[in-house]
Amino acid sequence: MFRPECPSRALPIRSGDKWAWLIMRCLEDGPRRFSELRVPLARVTSKVLVESLRAMERDGIVTRTAYAENPPRVEYELTPLGRSLFAPIAAVCAWTEEHFAELLDARAAYEQSAATGA
Amino acid sequence: MFRPECPSRALPIRSGDKWAWLIMRCLEDGPRRFSELRVPLARVTSKVLVESLRAMERDGIVTRTAYAENPPRVEYELTPLGRSLFAPIAAVCAWTEEHFAELLDARAAYEQSAATGA
Repeated sequence: MFRPECPSRALPIRSGDKWAWLIMRCLEDGPRRFSELRVPLARVTSKVLVESLRAMERDGIVTRTAYAENPPRVEYELTPLGRSLFAPIAAVCAWTEEHFAELLDARAAYEQSAATGA
Repeated sequence: MFRPECPSRALPIRSGDKWAWLIMRCLEDGPRRFSELRVPLARVTSKVLVESLRAMERDGIVTRTAYAENPPRVEYELTPLGRSLFAPIAAVCAWTEEHFAELLDARAAYEQSAATGA
């Protein structure tokens, strides 16, 4: 795990893409067009959303299908590999929800001791 | 989950600190001095290691104890909250190990299709 070639380096969600998990949730019920992803992910710029989707496509988490229609239609869909990521990530999310108050308390205590120089 | 105040934003490991998990593993067997963490984490600069430890301390994942000795001794130790993170993160790591070959294959295929303009 301490070597650069360790599998843990390859984890799609850990690879610095904080939007990947939100995108996965948006695709959970089936394929979505880019414009449909824009609605729940309005806080993300189009550029960043495209980059995130491309990274997920590269990792085999989503597929991108362009239909020869007018206007052109592009749909994103989770792959079976992408769907298999839900269970382990849900375990991490459950931990966060369970310990959210503890985390906030720890941060508040830390900031306060930093402020008072303790 | 799509709101900024969602608990998922608070997840220590997701908060962009890629060293936190390695540090946790280094502290799994008990408290360690800073110099002891430097050995397995030689690829990390001292500055980044200090910043990661500080972020983990802020989140209540580790404690930092300074002993009034000569030379001064500082030890880092996982809190119970920090230890409770092992199980969910292990689930994510197990997924990554299980699907590592698939991820590498997907990336190779993506790079190849990008290179050929397919």
